[in-house]
This record gives sequence, structure tokens and C-alpha cells, in this order.
Amino acid sequence: MVTPLALLQESLGALVDTREASLEEARADRSGHSAPGRPLAVVHAERVEHVQETLRIATATRTPVVVRGAGTGLAGAANAGTGEIVLSTRRMTAIREVRPDDLLAVVEPGILNAELNAALAAHGLWWPPDPASRDISTVGGNIATGAGGLLCAKYGVVREAVLGVDLVLADGRLLHLGHRSVKGVTGLDLTSLVIGSEGTLGVVVGATLKLRRLVPGETCTVTATFPGVRSAAAASAAVTAAGVQPAIMELMDAASLTAVHALLALPAPTPGAAQLTIQTDGPAAGVEAETIAGILRAHDGVTIVSRDRDEGERLLAVRRSMHAAMAALGTTLIEDVSVPRSAMPAMFDEIARIEREYGLTIPTVAHAGDGNLHPNFIFDGPETPPNVWAAADELFRAAIALGGTLTGEHGIGVLKRRWLAAELGDDQWELQRRIAAVFDPLGILNPGKVFDPDA
Amino acid sequence: MVTPLALLQESLGALVDTREASLEEARADRSGHSAPGRPLAVVHAERVEHVQETLRIATATRTPVVVRGAGTGLAGAANAGTGEIVLSTRRMTAIREVRPDDLLAVVEPGILNAELNAALAAHGLWWPPDPASRDISTVGGNIATGAGGLLCAKYGVVREAVLGVDLVLADGRLLHLGHRSVKGVTGLDLTSLVIGSEGTLGVVVGATLKLRRLVPGETCTVTATFPGVRSAAAASAAVTAAGVQPAIMELMDAASLTAVHALLALPAPTPGAAQLTIQTDGPAAGVEAETIAGILRAHDGVTIVSRDRDEGERLLAVRRSMHAAMAALGTTLIEDVSVPRSAMPAMFDEIARIEREYGLTIPTVAHAGDGNLHPNFIFDGPETPPNVWAAADELFRAAIALGGTLTGEHGIGVLKRRWLAAELGDDQWELQRRIAAVFDPLGILNPGKVFDPDA
Repeated sequence: MVTPLALLQESLGALVDTREASLEEARADRSGHSAPGRPLAVVHAERVEHVQETLRIATATRTPVVVRGAGTGLAGAANAGTGEIVLSTRRMTAIREVRPDDLLAVVEPGILNAELNAALAAHGLWWPPDPASRDISTVGGNIATGAGGLLCAKYGVVREAVLGVDLVLADGRLLHLGHRSVKGVTGLDLTSLVIGSEGTLGVVVGATLKLRRLVPGETCTVTATFPGVRSAAAASAAVTAAGVQPAIMELMDAASLTAVHALLALPAPTPGAAQLTIQTDGPAAGVEAETIAGILRAHDGVTIVSRDRDEGERLLAVRRSMHAAMAALGTTLIEDVSVPRSAMPAMFDEIARIEREYGLTIPTVAHAGDGNLHPNFIFDGPETPPNVWAAADELFRAAIALGGTLTGEHGIGVLKRRWLAAELGDDQWELQRRIAAVFDPLGILNPGKVFDPDA
Repeated sequence: MVTPLALLQESLGALVDTREASLEEARADRSGHSAPGRPLAVVHAERVEHVQETLRIATATRTPVVVRGAGTGLAGAANAGTGEIVLSTRRMTAIREVRPDDLLAVVEPGILNAELNAALAAHGLWWPPDPASRDISTVGGNIATGAGGLLCAKYGVVREAVLGVDLVLADGRLLHLGHRSVKGVTGLDLTSLVIGSEGTLGVVVGATLKLRRLVPGETCTVTATFPGVRSAAAASAAVTAAGVQPAIMELMDAASLTAVHALLALPAPTPGAAQLTIQTDGPAAGVEAETIAGILRAHDGVTIVSRDRDEGERLLAVRRSMHAAMAALGTTLIEDVSVPRSAMPAMFDEIARIEREYGLTIPTVAHAGDGNLHPNFIFDGPETPPNVWAAADELFRAAIALGGTLTGEHGIGVLKRRWLAAELGDDQWELQRRIAAVFDPLGILNPGKVFDPDA
């Protein structure tokens, strides 16, 4: 019998990579989790036909396929293990079209957000999705996870920034989903279904993106220090309730702030102090920043207001260094619960309770403008210990009980499969699994990810 | 054998309506099209359990069910014929919850947009979807069609304004889709899949809506008259290209303008003249209105600028009277193609070509800010004549060729089924049909709508 690997090599030649280092790299993402065993090969697709040919061979030989971009995921969705083909779209980086008049661009999936936005800036345009990984993550990966980021409350998430996708099905057929017009309700909205489907429905080989014009005017930055995380959370809720719309509103608790200050060799913060970093932009940026600073001071915040864009970036650098600061402490399980904004103080109370009950410190940052929290569990060694999973279990159930969700922007991947039915309910879980089977009847696309009856 | 009607009456008593007038009314919507034959009964559901019970009986007896709100659809999707149960959610009008702090409301599907917004105004909030039918159409109908409206370019369509839906499946099971948080990527996005699914996937019995704060400041209105529709279309494209974002930008061609002026007993417009009506809102409304007026004048527009909100409503009333003006001329087939904004002048050229080739006048209005055109075919008698269908066929194919779509906001219903595969392609058409079958394996929900192999 001809093996899948032999068929791939015969058909795709040098695009098929079986180097030890490549296979090893494809086992893991930035979640710290690795798949068991090693994949068969990494196929470095450079054109749509390479993706189609890989999937035809995979279907013919019933070989599982894991689609992969830059490998910056935080839920293990793109980790590949024993017997799997890794299908990388990282080399497909072309910007096929930019239309300033229609505020759209057509791109390939492997381009990085930062590269795309550098190219769009020349046209006075940008694509808003702004995950913390924007310098190293791909547009395809953003679509696969339904990524969010820092700017979502004002400028939306990926789902609001994609008009259509070209999708290769498991059997190699190419579909064009969505449209180029602003409006469109022809048939079922499969574009939205693909966004956030984490490689289970097909392979995105092109995307029509909805752009915005660069925001004119200055960017103002407000930082405020609070006696504790609860008062910081209450202050951020008060900003939202006042009807001011910051572009960015980031919250860091005391443990996060301490870790980042240590990493950046800054003076240690006041013990217990939490921080909000808020940016406003657009024509009213200055007025809004002053309004916000007033609200924060009324909530016991000690504020600094800066109208300098570079100074603002330096202030935000503290928040952007969170991932590195956590990595310096040990292995990190970064969680991603999201709750209605009014429930943020209660969610911080739940985190404090879980810290006490499990004897853990759980440094937490939050996209406070949209209620998305990233609690970080830190431990030694590669495997997440049982007590951390038990604490995470309490965290997830608390978020769901507060009207929230398991994951605001990272996805389910492998790390959150076992809680999926707790949020969806068994009936919806089964319905979703059956919908995925319509796209991929043989179950060769990212098997065991998202939906796993044994998780 | 016990009939479905007897089972419904036994179980739901006085909620089951078999009056001639009710059955007759349920055959038609505002499209002018009527279903053949007459439905069995109208069930006036008042609670979720009534919907579930109706669907359990329908499933047990294999009886088709047509869900219906206010009957204002324009594609025949809610028209019910021989042997069908009409399931009306029009009496389910409760606002279950309004949360100003979380900018959300939980409502039942039968409430009218206008009623909802009147109630939300007391909280300083609104729900942006703004179809021309907003005074007479339901939130459930808006969700079923994925409605758009006048304000979409600035404030988004229904898909961007719904966080979650409660859905009763064909077999009576109740699912809770989506979430209450701003962000959420747990599993597949079934909420987006249900939006615009036109009654084929399930019955929406509740919706968690994403609200906005009322826009502060004045509303300014600019009207401009142009020598012809092409210059008006070019002027509107120039406004978009200039980076100014109107709240509303409506275009009326000469035939539309003439018909509305006749209906409202206004002086006849200059022959051939087309009109743009543009509103700006928010803190910069006045400055933006002046900028826009300058652009329009540079494109041969004769402009009037008003800063008075009531005067603005009077100017917009001309546009809002379009439907009535067309109805006064005869039976109307209102089309709904949407194209990339830059293709609008080309689309008007195509309409002019079709008018010449078929000897028709096709009065056309457009939501010019988002490239959504409503060409109106007028004829005598209840049946759409073959030459009108032939002209519509050319219209649809022209829109698709320009990178556009069959329907921007009205949906496929029965009237556009036969062009669905032309836009989706056969593979995607079949995939969509199979996805619908996962929700409704017996095919009892709105059979023959949207997907019809014989259309």
C-alpha cells in the first residue's frame, strides 16, 4: 500500500517537510500544551491548489489534517500529533487586492496582522482585529479562532471584520462563501459559521476583509492605579456606564502588575495595587480622556493622562508584556473567560475565592471594556497539574453562572473541550457536531479538537 | 386517524385560529405574492411552551410549519399554503430584561422594532436595525431575514446587533444559542447561522440584543438634486471615498422621485432628476453635513442643508413614502440587489440597459452608503409576468457579475429561490441544504422556502 506520506511527496515534492525540527514544532502552540506523538509531515502550501491536493490525498487515505498558521494559538487547536498531516498556510501571504473605495481587501491566510496593517496604512486603511499577538499571528489564525483583542469594544471582533472566505473542504473542493458587498443575506451565513470553527470545517485559503479608514486625530492615554482589583473593575464598569467609549481599556491585577514590573526592571508597584490603562482616539480623544480620568478619580484612582502617542505606547507596553512576564514565572495556562461587563467585579471575587480555596495565585488581566478576563495559572513542568485543572473547572463554571462564556477569543481547542457541553448543553453540543460532519463527513479535519466525546 | 388540527385544538384550545380571514391573511406578505391554497390553522403562541407544543404535534404528524411575525416580509418567506400550520409569534411581545450597564436587552420575537425602541429610549438606549418597515415589523422577523435598513452603513445590520437567540427545534426542543457577553467563541456560531435563515432552522422565541446608547447631539439633513441617477450615484460614492460616514444616505432615481411626488401631491420634480438624502448625527453632525454638501456640489448637486430634526424627518418622508408610491402604481416586485459601493454607478447602467431591452420602467431607490439597491418592477394583476421575471433574471445576474449579491436584506423566500444556486454554486447550495437538514431532519420547517430543488 502506498502511504499518505509517499503520495504527498510524489504530488507536492519539496513542499512536504519531514525534518525533525519542523515536526516537533508543529506539536505545540503558545498554550504550552503539546500533542502526543509526532505528525507525518508538514505541507507548506503556497497556492490554493496545494491545499486542495493535500486534502484530496488526506481524504483518499483517511488521514487526519491539522491546519496551521503561525502556531500562536492558546488552546492547542493547531497542535498536531501521531499520524497527522500538518497543512501550513503560513507561506500564503499575498494581498490580492486592496479597494479603498469599497473599504475591503482580499488576502491570503498566512499574512500576519501587523504585515497586513503596514501595507494597508499606505492606503489610509486598517483591519481592526488586534489580538495581543498581532505582530506574530496570521489573519487565517485570527479567522480560525474568531480572534478578539484590545480594541474590540470600540472596533469589533473578527466576526465583524470579514465579508467572505474561500474555503477548501475536506475532499478538496473549493467554495466561495460570503460576498464583497456590505450587506448580503443570500442563504445561510456560512462565513460566520467558519469564523471561530478552529479548523474543523475546512481550510480558509482566502478572505475578503472589511476595512476601516485610519482614525484621524490624536490618541490619548490614561493610566490609573487603584487600591485593589475590585475598585479598578468597578471604575472600568463606571466608564462604560457613563457612555464614553474608549478604544482600549485594559485592567491588570496586583500579581500581574508585580510580575511585569519585575520583568521590565521597573520599580515594584504598591502591594495590592491594580491598574487600568485606557486609550481614547478620534476627534474627541482629548475630551474623552479628561472625562474618563474624572470618573476614575471618583473611584479612588490615581491618574496620569498623556496626549503623546509614543508615551501612550510606553504605558501600554506594561500590559503588552504580560505574556512574557508569565512565561518567566513558569508554565502558564492562560484562561479566557468572558462575562457581561457588569459581572466583572463579581468575576474577580470568584477568582479571589478560587485562589484562596486552592492556595494559588492567579494573575489576571482583563479587556475591561468588553468583560473578557485572562486569568493565568502558573506551574512547573510541562503538564497542567490536577489541582490547576480543578481550579480552572471552578473558574469556568463561575463564568457560565454569571452569564458568561468559557472563551472570549482563544477558542476551545483541546484545552477546553471537556467544558464545552457544560456551556452549550448536550443537545446543542450534538447539533454542532453534526453540522461539522456535514462539512467533513469522514472526520479528517482536526479530529478531537473542539468536539471530543471522550474529553 | 386524529388530524393535526384536532391535536392542536385539543392541546392549545383558543390559541388555534381557523377563521377564514386569518387563514387568508397568512397566505401573503408585503411582496404581493400569495401561497397556493390555504393553511390548516394559525396558532397564536403566547409562550415558549405553545411554540414547543405546536412543533411536537407538527413533528408527530409530519405537518409543515410556517413561522410568521407581522407578515411584512418582501420575499414570501412567511407565506403559508395548503396543509401548513402557521405558527405566529406576534403575541410574544415581552421585553424580559433591559440592562443599560451591559448594553443588552432580552426580548420576545413578536415585539415591533418601533415599540422596542420606544421602551429603550426611556433608558437612553436603542437597537439600531432600522428597516423601512420598522414601525410594522417584528424583531423576530428582523432576525429571520437578517434585516438591514437605512442606518446600516454607520450602525450595522441585525447580525451585528444580536448576541444570542433561544431557538425551538422542529421536534420541540429548546436551545439557548450565543451568550450575554460582548465576546464569545465557544463552539460554532449558531446564532449567526440562525440570523437570516428565514424560518428554515427553528423558531426564535427569545433574543438577547446588543444595544447602543442614544446618539447625543443634533441630526443634520442634506438633500441634493442631480441631473441624473448616474451623477447621484457617483456623488454618493465620492462621499464614502472621502471618509465621511453619514448615518443615512438614500438615493432615489427619477421614476421613484416622480411617483412619490405624485403620491404626496408635491410639485413635479425636474424630468430626469435624481436625489440624494443624507443624514449625519453625533457630535460632528454639523461639520460633516457641510463637508458632504461640498462634495455633492462638486458633483453637480443642488443642495439644501437642514439642522432641524423635524425638517429632516420631512425631507426623509419622501424616501419613506416609496413603498406606498409604488403600490399606488400597480403590483410591485421589489428587488434587493447589493453590490460593492464602487459598483453602484455600473449597476445603475445595467438597470438602464434592462429597462431599454425589456421596455420597462424600473423605479429604483438605493441605500447608497452600503450599495444596496431596490429596483421596483411594476405590473398589473397578481401574477408576476414572464417578461418581468426575465428582466429580474438579468438584474440578478448583473449584480452577481459585479461582485454583488441577490439580496441585501429581504432574503430569498420563494421569490428568489431559482437564482440561489447561481450565486452560491451547486456545491455550496447542497452543503447549506444539508446543514438545514441537521436542524430539521423531517423537513417540516418552511418547506420549499429558500432551498427548493425544483424552483
